[in-house]
Amino acid sequence: MTAEIICVGTELLLGDILNTNARFLARELAALGFDVLHQQVVGDNAARLEETVRAAMARSDLLVFSGGLGPTADDLTKETVARCFDDEMRFEPKVLEDIRAFFTSTGRTTPANNEKQALVPQKGGWFENPNGTAPAVWFEAGGKRAVLLPGPPSELEPLWKSAVRPFLQKGQTRVLQSLVLRLCGIGESHAEELLGHLFGNENPTAAVYAKTAELTIRITAAAPDEERARAMCREYAQNFYRLAGEYIYAEGEEGLEYALVDALRQKGLTLATAESCTGGLVSQLVTNVPGASEVFGFGFVTYANEAKQKLLGVSAAALEQHGAVSHQVAAAMAAGAARAAGADVAVALTGIAGPGGGTPEKPVGLVYLGAARGGEVFVKRLDLGKRDRATVRLAAAKNALDAARRLALGLPLPGAVRAEDIPE
Amino acid sequence: MTAEIICVGTELLLGDILNTNARFLARELAALGFDVLHQQVVGDNAARLEETVRAAMARSDLLVFSGGLGPTADDLTKETVARCFDDEMRFEPKVLEDIRAFFTSTGRTTPANNEKQALVPQKGGWFENPNGTAPAVWFEAGGKRAVLLPGPPSELEPLWKSAVRPFLQKGQTRVLQSLVLRLCGIGESHAEELLGHLFGNENPTAAVYAKTAELTIRITAAAPDEERARAMCREYAQNFYRLAGEYIYAEGEEGLEYALVDALRQKGLTLATAESCTGGLVSQLVTNVPGASEVFGFGFVTYANEAKQKLLGVSAAALEQHGAVSHQVAAAMAAGAARAAGADVAVALTGIAGPGGGTPEKPVGLVYLGAARGGEVFVKRLDLGKRDRATVRLAAAKNALDAARRLALGLPLPGAVRAEDIPE
Repeated sequence: MTAEIICVGTELLLGDILNTNARFLARELAALGFDVLHQQVVGDNAARLEETVRAAMARSDLLVFSGGLGPTADDLTKETVARCFDDEMRFEPKVLEDIRAFFTSTGRTTPANNEKQALVPQKGGWFENPNGTAPAVWFEAGGKRAVLLPGPPSELEPLWKSAVRPFLQKGQTRVLQSLVLRLCGIGESHAEELLGHLFGNENPTAAVYAKTAELTIRITAAAPDEERARAMCREYAQNFYRLAGEYIYAEGEEGLEYALVDALRQKGLTLATAESCTGGLVSQLVTNVPGASEVFGFGFVTYANEAKQKLLGVSAAALEQHGAVSHQVAAAMAAGAARAAGADVAVALTGIAGPGGGTPEKPVGLVYLGAARGGEVFVKRLDLGKRDRATVRLAAAKNALDAARRLALGLPLPGAVRAEDIPE
Repeated sequence: MTAEIICVGTELLLGDILNTNARFLARELAALGFDVLHQQVVGDNAARLEETVRAAMARSDLLVFSGGLGPTADDLTKETVARCFDDEMRFEPKVLEDIRAFFTSTGRTTPANNEKQALVPQKGGWFENPNGTAPAVWFEAGGKRAVLLPGPPSELEPLWKSAVRPFLQKGQTRVLQSLVLRLCGIGESHAEELLGHLFGNENPTAAVYAKTAELTIRITAAAPDEERARAMCREYAQNFYRLAGEYIYAEGEEGLEYALVDALRQKGLTLATAESCTGGLVSQLVTNVPGASEVFGFGFVTYANEAKQKLLGVSAAALEQHGAVSHQVAAAMAAGAARAAGADVAVALTGIAGPGGGTPEKPVGLVYLGAARGGEVFVKRLDLGKRDRATVRLAAAKNALDAARRLALGLPLPGAVRAEDIPE
């Protein structure tokens, strides 16, 4: 079965936003076993949109749309596709009720122009959108199918996963299954050297993707049924566990913060954070995990030296003698955070995120990570290189999450020294 | 003049990589005054590629390609476009020399299959690629033009800037300039009602984009020269300032955190944050602004009630009587943060980010925002609706940034009440 992705929106044609929906849908359709042969972007223009839809219907079995389902006169996708499928849409009172409930839940009244969002296909159906006002809809006629999704990724992705994917999965004879391995603490070139020979296989395939301070390996198997495809992935994954198991922190889509919260929960431990250069990024990541309150109560954002002294008890002497970006201050911050919060594990970051503030001795990208558990305090120097501020901060935060996870699980902390071995 | 972007590559169709080239080229072409009406992605397949090129030539004046210029048999873009332009390419010795020099400089010998990269159009020309082996080439015939660029962004972008952009600029008699207005505190539907009549204009055009808890309006003018286009944008912007000026917090690409840091700096004030449900997101956003240390020293992530008491002096009575998610606790957190940090302005957030933890009285999406300046403390109830956890948190954080900005500038805080008017 062939599929085609059509993204509707002038903001894409103008380059105002990156087309992340196209990538998401491409990956998802491939995993369902569809051959995606075309992607298109077209603006909010009825004639061009219709021409695009008709060309796509002539060559592809399934058309997946994102965008143009909003309430304004500019939003034309549904009306245009209905015309191409020769469908008169009908008014669906339940959708209007949902829209009204959505506005009420955000304390507003429903503007009249939202009512056209309640039109749904007669030759097809619709899926409720829990995160916005536009429902997803589908059309089917003459052996062709179209699925229309709202443009905002925060609406499109949950709708896809909960409703559209199961709906499309029904018809497929060959399925793809993927298994994602998540690694931290190993660089891309080192992974290539160690694991490179595993990336040329035909079925399952394996590919490596580099993200800030971590790697993911995606193993994908094609088989007649899900169970067989899953087993093939699992078997192939053993190769990676054998060669690089110490770096694999989890499987699936959830990042380091989830692995950390899991580890703390599993061991019945609590965490505290002390952040200078990351300014709250570590605590923000941890608390984005639902239920983090079981393991996390206190975070200290000590951007100023005064805050490091007042909240964490870092000594004026350490700050003066070694500077805020130092082994000694990172160690004192971690120990201070554990103490002030009464937490079992604490991590601390102090460094130079840039773009300014670097010196030859302490360049941009230099970060010290402190980590405390029980009476023990460790410090690790991170050289995160001359990258942009946001990337340096994210790389530092991910290193802290992994260090906390390792301490919680009683694993070694590669590259760290004990605070007691650092000269005062 | 109309233009069309065609990206060639199976890795895009599979969703392995994000199409950043499409965005780059879209923005650049818009700035040169081209109307980009279509973007397409197609794989390395001769028949489908040719069909795509012919459809594009039938409707667009300029075709811009990325990808498929490599040395392998899979790389078909140049051969296919040559066929569509009815051109026999010629061998260009200078290109092969450049390719050989490139390989020598990286310590390798030139593989034989790189020689096909030395074929260049007879109906057109080529541009040297200093960062790779594939030169950019262009074809021109029958009033249509095609420009072909290599796929890696590290080759495409420098080639575009140094050679292709100046080449295309020559023919253009009209340039485009954009002005972006950023708004907080007004929803998309209400903006549509208030400002809708301003979005139908032909030149300048204006379009609205919704992001979490804010909107941007992009005004774009076409004129014979940059200065005139800029003036037209500025003049048209006055309409938005007149009708919705109170919501416009800045112009340009930088978000609320930049406007807040600017406001604090301008007024010589300092900020502190106290965060429960956002877990450090506000402080993280503020400290992502370079130089934030001038105005921000202390952030308190008080996820546990114990932390609210210990770090911010929130009373056990308030927590017991009203619960952590209440007017009273938000007010006490803001006042406590200002006091503990010795800061001029403080903002606090406490709420229910979901997915769990909601009750009929205190549903997911209910957040109280506290804001203190000098002795005055304000509280605002935010109903952020049944959205996902990350979106509720981001919407809450943006409301806090805007509230802090308003207090710093001495502006009113719409929808807020004074803490002294709340019953104990």
